[in-house]
Amino acid sequence: MTCSDKLVVMISSPLEAEHAGRIAAAAPDAIELIYRPELMPPTRYPMDHGGDPSWRRTPTQQAEWRALLARAEVLWDFADDPSASPRELSPNLRWVQTTSAGVGQLVRRLGMHESELIVTTTSGVHGLPLAEFVFAALLYHTKWFAHLQAEQRAHHWARFCTGELAGQTLAIVGPGRIGREIARIARCFGMTVHALARSHDPARAAVLGIDRLFARDELTALLAGADCVVLSTPHTPETERLIGAAEFAAMKPGVVFINIARGVVVDEEALIEALRSGRIGFAALDVFAVEPLPPDSPLWDMPNVLINPHSASTVFTENAKIADLFIRNLRCYLAGDYAKMSPILDKARMY
Amino acid sequence: MTCSDKLVVMISSPLEAEHAGRIAAAAPDAIELIYRPELMPPTRYPMDHGGDPSWRRTPTQQAEWRALLARAEVLWDFADDPSASPRELSPNLRWVQTTSAGVGQLVRRLGMHESELIVTTTSGVHGLPLAEFVFAALLYHTKWFAHLQAEQRAHHWARFCTGELAGQTLAIVGPGRIGREIARIARCFGMTVHALARSHDPARAAVLGIDRLFARDELTALLAGADCVVLSTPHTPETERLIGAAEFAAMKPGVVFINIARGVVVDEEALIEALRSGRIGFAALDVFAVEPLPPDSPLWDMPNVLINPHSASTVFTENAKIADLFIRNLRCYLAGDYAKMSPILDKARMY
Repeated sequence: MTCSDKLVVMISSPLEAEHAGRIAAAAPDAIELIYRPELMPPTRYPMDHGGDPSWRRTPTQQAEWRALLARAEVLWDFADDPSASPRELSPNLRWVQTTSAGVGQLVRRLGMHESELIVTTTSGVHGLPLAEFVFAALLYHTKWFAHLQAEQRAHHWARFCTGELAGQTLAIVGPGRIGREIARIARCFGMTVHALARSHDPARAAVLGIDRLFARDELTALLAGADCVVLSTPHTPETERLIGAAEFAAMKPGVVFINIARGVVVDEEALIEALRSGRIGFAALDVFAVEPLPPDSPLWDMPNVLINPHSASTVFTENAKIADLFIRNLRCYLAGDYAKMSPILDKARMY
Repeated sequence: MTCSDKLVVMISSPLEAEHAGRIAAAAPDAIELIYRPELMPPTRYPMDHGGDPSWRRTPTQQAEWRALLARAEVLWDFADDPSASPRELSPNLRWVQTTSAGVGQLVRRLGMHESELIVTTTSGVHGLPLAEFVFAALLYHTKWFAHLQAEQRAHHWARFCTGELAGQTLAIVGPGRIGREIARIARCFGMTVHALARSHDPARAAVLGIDRLFARDELTALLAGADCVVLSTPHTPETERLIGAAEFAAMKPGVVFINIARGVVVDEEALIEALRSGRIGFAALDVFAVEPLPPDSPLWDMPNVLINPHSASTVFTENAKIADLFIRNLRCYLAGDYAKMSPILDKARMY
């Protein structure tokens, strides 16, 4: 039976039944929710939105999956089918809620960047988890935890002295929602916060809670004045390989460098060289030019590198928060209040 | 030559010349500063206030040291001479500025707890450095850094999911100046903050910025509701062995336990048992029943323990801050404004 008078909403990436149930219950008279976990790949870890890539639907399952997609007007994540465009898979498709913030490149790759499709992202959901990772890494380095671990293994007691976050200058490249969470916590620790922005309007700096904004053509000055540099910029043509040999050369010797943006924002060869030379004192990297990071990458064995397998934003509360956001957007969508849906991907700016 | 019309101030623990110079320059017409680094032990690490314990003055040096102490009215730290009381060493002694906050027990041991001696401590100086260590430890555990390190050694990429500080409940035992810094940063991370206090007056909780205060007889309830417990209480007869087997048994299985107070606030045998049983998921310890921690302590080899050799509060800016505080107090002292000196040790409460 089809319920042609109801909005057809389909969950097309792994999601816990609890959250699917909340979505179904949010507007039971207005939506038909398609939630068929058995047609989706098993998850490899909690909050895995991709699922096991080696898993395949049987031909029967695939036919059913395609038939369901063909009915959907609203999707929870783009479907994992590289053989056809979202428009071919779902002719009625009008709105996709993604489970990631950085989907500008994906939407372009899917050929949807000039379409009227509404894409809502998770921008904002991952800000605090990513900020927690940034401060975990900053404090791990600043409070000499690697030294503590080595001393403990040796049963060796020797009092020592460390640096501190207070008084350091943090440069944020990309003061979006994630960058603003990082800035907020940095101020709490007594750090000075600088950031790259489209302009250096002091009023905008005040709104962002940032001590000083640097315009794009002041990138080198921003980097030169920082004790710690965090990349939290989206991947756009403008930010691709934004940080290369010249930018690393501008940084203070011993700088802390953290990338939670995308690997391609950095020239990885130049990064490796800056780590080898000691220009970068310590790097925490969540993203890489190629993921998974190849087993023979020199980054794995560098003593001044901490590698996170692109999981810095993955926390147990993630899907609950995305479902909350989806339900808010669903109510707007059902009411025809499309302008109130948020955060909507700007397909031209790609974030 | 003696300058009998000037206040005799003596630096009696290792201090950088820069800060001694600032102190001398703060009131050059009013004080005579005795600063003789060659009569003090060499430091083992930056900000070492004790100096090398194996170092000895020559008999000539010792005689000179004693003669200088005999003239002092004001001391930067109690002198390192266990053979005589401060009063015997310095008959004119009226004020001691310590380089530590937790000196109540020391003052008692020196027999000065019932004297009219003014003791100013560093209470407040170490709050933010200790809070940085607390959050370094909380985030190290919460963001699975030990797991990341093991995966990196194996060149193994597997995405994963962690917990987060946001939403957790932090219990602070001892909401003094250190505890309040911890509370401030915890709120910034979106944690709920509970604390033990003399009363559970909601107005006092609001002033401290703490969600809920628990009175002393509610200690078990405080501990039972916490995901993380931090001890930042002074060492007094009341707090000695405050946390023992019954208190560990009240905590949530897997709790994070951090001690930056004093080792004797905890029953260390009960702590070791709670770590073995898994009641405590992770502990970060800066202080121990016996320091240095004996090489055969089982704590060294426990995978769920991070040991800091009582250096969590030691940062490069420490002496600059204590010198600032001393100069402020010196101006009050010279003006006879003794009531404005701060923070003054309450020798009865011992903090």
